Amino acid sequence: MSKQQLSLEPVGGCCVPIMDAALDGAAAAEGASVFKALADPIRLRLMSIIASAADEVCVCDLTPQFDVSGPTISHHLKVLREAGLVDCERRGTWVYYWPLPERLTWMSTLLSVPAPTAG
Amino acid sequence: MSKQQLSLEPVGGCCVPIMDAALDGAAAAEGASVFKALADPIRLRLMSIIASAADEVCVCDLTPQFDVSGPTISHHLKVLREAGLVDCERRGTWVYYWPLPERLTWMSTLLSVPAPTAG
Repeated sequence: MSKQQLSLEPVGGCCVPIMDAALDGAAAAEGASVFKALADPIRLRLMSIIASAADEVCVCDLTPQFDVSGPTISHHLKVLREAGLVDCERRGTWVYYWPLPERLTWMSTLLSVPAPTAG
Repeated sequence: MSKQQLSLEPVGGCCVPIMDAALDGAAAAEGASVFKALADPIRLRLMSIIASAADEVCVCDLTPQFDVSGPTISHHLKVLREAGLVDCERRGTWVYYWPLPERLTWMSTLLSVPAPTAG
């Protein structure tokens, strides 16, 4: 699937939780593509390393943490970027990554469950 | 991948957000398998219909909403069940589905982003 950045608009990080309203076909297709970005062990772990870091993460610090090649890591990082989960900038030899919290908030809200009401 | 219900323990619906701590390889593998269950347009839409329904949903009410065969819907429902996202019960001719909010809460918490602190 060749595509640019998804058009899903996480305006203000907000969306309607699936506990509140069913998705139509188009919304489900777009949402599923975001989940697909995290539906891989290497990508989910990469995402968690980038998301939990105090600062931007150099790709040179990511690759040694995995038993796969540099190009494989670069491929997975590209998928995360196309899903709007991370962004990056090249500086000299290396590329540096940081998380885009809006997309995480969007996914988190979509899956959120209302707290049980008392009584 | 042939597997039974995932062993991921959503104890109290709680887990550590990826913004707070990186996942190790094992946790990432298990987490990715849950995201994979929602990384398909039909499954995400099925999940949203079941999750947003006021009551249990009969498979006989699900199938007509999709342009795919009954067995295809059944396959996707099985994936959702194995991921711990829904459960079901057969009564007479039909199978009835309901959501398991613990797993949704687990995913939502994993992806949650701390609110910006003031000042």
